[in-house]
Amino acid sequence: MDFTPPTPDQIFALKVNAGIVELAAHDRFAAASPDMVEAIAEGIGQFAQGEWAPLSRVGDIEGAKLENGLVRLPAGYAEAYKGFVAAGWGAVSAPEAFGGQGLPYALACCTLETLGAANFAFTLLPMLTVGAIEAIDHHGSADQKTLYLPKLISGEWSGTMNLTEPQAGSDVGALRTTATPITEGEHAGKYKIKGTKIFITYGEHELADNIVHLVLARVPGAPDGSRGISLFLVPKYLPKDDGTPGPRNDLKVVGLEHKMGIHASPTCVMSYGDNDDCLGEIVGAENGGLRAMFTMMNSARINVGSQGVQVAEAATQRAMAYARDRVQSARAGSPDKTPVAIIEHPDVRRMLLRMRALTEAARALLYYTAGQVDRGSLGDASAQARAELLVPLIKSWGTDIGCEVASIGVQVHGGMGFIEETGAAQHYRDARITPIYEGTNGIQAADLVTRKLGLDNGEVLAALMAEIARESGDVTTLAELARACATVGRWMAGEASLDDRLAGSVPFQTMCAVAVAGWQLLRQSRAAAAEGTPGPIARSKPVIARYFLSRIVPEALGLQAGATAGAALLYELDTESLMA
Amino acid sequence: MDFTPPTPDQIFALKVNAGIVELAAHDRFAAASPDMVEAIAEGIGQFAQGEWAPLSRVGDIEGAKLENGLVRLPAGYAEAYKGFVAAGWGAVSAPEAFGGQGLPYALACCTLETLGAANFAFTLLPMLTVGAIEAIDHHGSADQKTLYLPKLISGEWSGTMNLTEPQAGSDVGALRTTATPITEGEHAGKYKIKGTKIFITYGEHELADNIVHLVLARVPGAPDGSRGISLFLVPKYLPKDDGTPGPRNDLKVVGLEHKMGIHASPTCVMSYGDNDDCLGEIVGAENGGLRAMFTMMNSARINVGSQGVQVAEAATQRAMAYARDRVQSARAGSPDKTPVAIIEHPDVRRMLLRMRALTEAARALLYYTAGQVDRGSLGDASAQARAELLVPLIKSWGTDIGCEVASIGVQVHGGMGFIEETGAAQHYRDARITPIYEGTNGIQAADLVTRKLGLDNGEVLAALMAEIARESGDVTTLAELARACATVGRWMAGEASLDDRLAGSVPFQTMCAVAVAGWQLLRQSRAAAAEGTPGPIARSKPVIARYFLSRIVPEALGLQAGATAGAALLYELDTESLMA
Repeated sequence: MDFTPPTPDQIFALKVNAGIVELAAHDRFAAASPDMVEAIAEGIGQFAQGEWAPLSRVGDIEGAKLENGLVRLPAGYAEAYKGFVAAGWGAVSAPEAFGGQGLPYALACCTLETLGAANFAFTLLPMLTVGAIEAIDHHGSADQKTLYLPKLISGEWSGTMNLTEPQAGSDVGALRTTATPITEGEHAGKYKIKGTKIFITYGEHELADNIVHLVLARVPGAPDGSRGISLFLVPKYLPKDDGTPGPRNDLKVVGLEHKMGIHASPTCVMSYGDNDDCLGEIVGAENGGLRAMFTMMNSARINVGSQGVQVAEAATQRAMAYARDRVQSARAGSPDKTPVAIIEHPDVRRMLLRMRALTEAARALLYYTAGQVDRGSLGDASAQARAELLVPLIKSWGTDIGCEVASIGVQVHGGMGFIEETGAAQHYRDARITPIYEGTNGIQAADLVTRKLGLDNGEVLAALMAEIARESGDVTTLAELARACATVGRWMAGEASLDDRLAGSVPFQTMCAVAVAGWQLLRQSRAAAAEGTPGPIARSKPVIARYFLSRIVPEALGLQAGATAGAALLYELDTESLMA
Repeated sequence: MDFTPPTPDQIFALKVNAGIVELAAHDRFAAASPDMVEAIAEGIGQFAQGEWAPLSRVGDIEGAKLENGLVRLPAGYAEAYKGFVAAGWGAVSAPEAFGGQGLPYALACCTLETLGAANFAFTLLPMLTVGAIEAIDHHGSADQKTLYLPKLISGEWSGTMNLTEPQAGSDVGALRTTATPITEGEHAGKYKIKGTKIFITYGEHELADNIVHLVLARVPGAPDGSRGISLFLVPKYLPKDDGTPGPRNDLKVVGLEHKMGIHASPTCVMSYGDNDDCLGEIVGAENGGLRAMFTMMNSARINVGSQGVQVAEAATQRAMAYARDRVQSARAGSPDKTPVAIIEHPDVRRMLLRMRALTEAARALLYYTAGQVDRGSLGDASAQARAELLVPLIKSWGTDIGCEVASIGVQVHGGMGFIEETGAAQHYRDARITPIYEGTNGIQAADLVTRKLGLDNGEVLAALMAEIARESGDVTTLAELARACATVGRWMAGEASLDDRLAGSVPFQTMCAVAVAGWQLLRQSRAAAAEGTPGPIARSKPVIARYFLSRIVPEALGLQAGATAGAALLYELDTESLMA
């Protein structure tokens, strides 16, 4: 199957949902002119289609391999990464002071989305580097920024995030990796890092000249739990004074996980300080690691939500192509008994429209969220608060629909969908990690019903839902859903216990996400009806939107009972009886 | 993880949902005494736990391999199959005249369910043999029965179903394999078979002394389409007069598919008659293949629905065990900051209860359906009609919840769920075939809204939903869902066009299945409240049922809009615009 970048829908979403034209009216984003937006969206599309998409399947088959302490990536990956660096695709929204383009985050979203739709597992490499850039940009010293940011932004060096340990997953505060201050000698002021980290994406590889590990660890005497973690910058090669990679640091990959999907992405077990000689620099203050993590978390979570859109886009294209080519059975009830392409059968068409509606709705939500982040970065406190509310929605629902769309894609293929050669199964396997990492979707839901629901005493959610209800117009299902979300939100903020809130958090999260995504799709539909929209979108968008609003929005209303059912029933059985 | 057979819940479902006591009141099923039921349920549980469950993981890792024309199964499989044959587990509901036990089908369901929960991929071998037994029992000649049935029933020989060809999947009538009558010589009366079949489960292996292929093919001059297909019995070894395997027939495996799951089950490409010397016997009349297929189809589809229950049971057990052992984070809001097992956290508990509720509801639906089949076989026409209505429901919803429960199982494991070593991913991969084979769930839905909805002019569905509404009592959500199903059914049978029906068929199918499953779970809950129910079930069942009725039934109501939305929107975009 040839991958076609979804450039027109991305540009449309950048305009309608991210509000890129309004963003470009600000001095800081003045470079984001319509021409620049098109150049980036089309340029990354061509690059992803030509250089990265052809490597997706071989990446799944060959996978990343650990050989003699080195991680070997599949054939062609090194060259394809060189092309990425040469074109500067990692620099779009990075700070100009260090070689970035300083464009809106929404445009960086577009590049990452395109790359990931073309090659899901490979795109984890630049995605993780973004996290390292953000950590250093927001919390690093001037020297750290000068030394590390240009190389990370260009992509010559890559970055990793080291949070998880075997006993510390969702509960990152349980980590045990230590960082001991060095008080004398040439490394005074630095720390010795010691510990084992797991699930480290692209923790080792040979594509970049250096790997900058961001590692959470504890300094001596640190408080228990998440208040006692600090963030360290631990390079694979210690940079020399001239900024080039110097001696090898005392850290190494000791194993790769055998995973269900994303085979081209090495998921490493990393060991730091086996010889008590692993050097790290602190980023920010001691015991300030949690704060630094929170900074990075928003864009990291949005980027994982984007992965849901990516895999959904790829799965949809593959299913469409198969359904157009596969001929089977005549149309039911037709006097003409000639077999037709299965895309003509009602239930197959239902599946394909559902795939497109979920994908485009999630994309609309993604770019809306990115636009709010950009407004927040320009000092709009209300947009900032809304962005924070939207983060768990796009992370969880984006990844949920990624899995669902990939599953429908398998179904459209029939028996061939279960055969690896068609590629539909790869999407299904790849997608399944996204509801888990970067905070499981249950953790997102907990964030929603505790921290995010409390923003401005619940007014952030209430205002959002009121706005949706107001703009719904004659789309009564959407207005009804928005009002239901507001009602559940009030109940949760009011009489519901913490357990009640948590018990209903996941269905509530889906309700809210569908409401916002449906609203943004409705905005697209109305914009498409206006003059000047390109042809295919003007034709298809109103149909896609109506499909979503008439089928998927009512399904979300069916979740209200579960959202408000409370926790009592969950604990009526003790653990032994629950398991019996 | 140790697999524990779900024997108590199976026995309970056999009593409450299959009505095994009433069945045993009939002469034909008099042997199905409570002691016999317990002996079978417990016996198969011990066998499956001890002999088959330990081979599930190695089967996934090693898989079936094609080497020099032979299919090699993973280590231990040959011995485990010998144990199955020795114990006679394939004979439970087979006809007594040929060595079977003649017990109710519901009991055979119990044995298959248990084996499959222990080792999903391996159980396809006896499951396919059941299809061959049914075909020969219902449509074979006296000689064919005498020669083949005893060996198939004992399991010494295994069976396959050969329907699919590359161009003939859902549209079986498009098949091209030919069967040419032999008019003279020693094989006069037989046919020469020639063609290629794909997706043939256990098409070749060395575990049985012979393999009996049931092959659909066309005789010369046969009408086009499904009216022109005939069924043939094509043995791997041509039996000698004494019934022992004789010379090798001209058929062979030419390839194995590389599948996402069920790796221990060889999915074969079979070639018949490469040397124009493949001998087959017709089963039934020429061009009567479709009728023969319909006979087998009901139990085959129920058995695939059972596979959904199987994988759900296994995934639930694995997730429960992990959630009990994995310690992470203190209870939210608790003054005690000691980390607890994740089974204590509200959202994990929600996931586990959902897994159990879906699994037990699908099991209740499975045994209810099996009981109706048994009543039908005793001459109860109304039960027979209801069974036919239930077949698409258990096939589709059983497999849908199998996938969903396996997915939740991955989620409960967090990052470890994506790592193959935990086994959660295997369930997720294995489950995905079940909504596809034996008629995709879309094909089931088409069957529901055309043939099944028309049974007795719609009265079969109407009576079922009326009964559910009547028995719902104070469970208003269930009554509401049953009434909604009746309303949608009336609309479909009335003003809706065929396209409208097909467009809404899948959501309607889910609504109906949830209504019937919820009803059968409610029956279980009420029975559990009665005296004499074993302890654990009496405690847990009312909670499981309330969970299902208060959370999952309302979700099904959310599907009504999609069920009745009609087909017009699906065709508003032409194919080119749909794909753009």
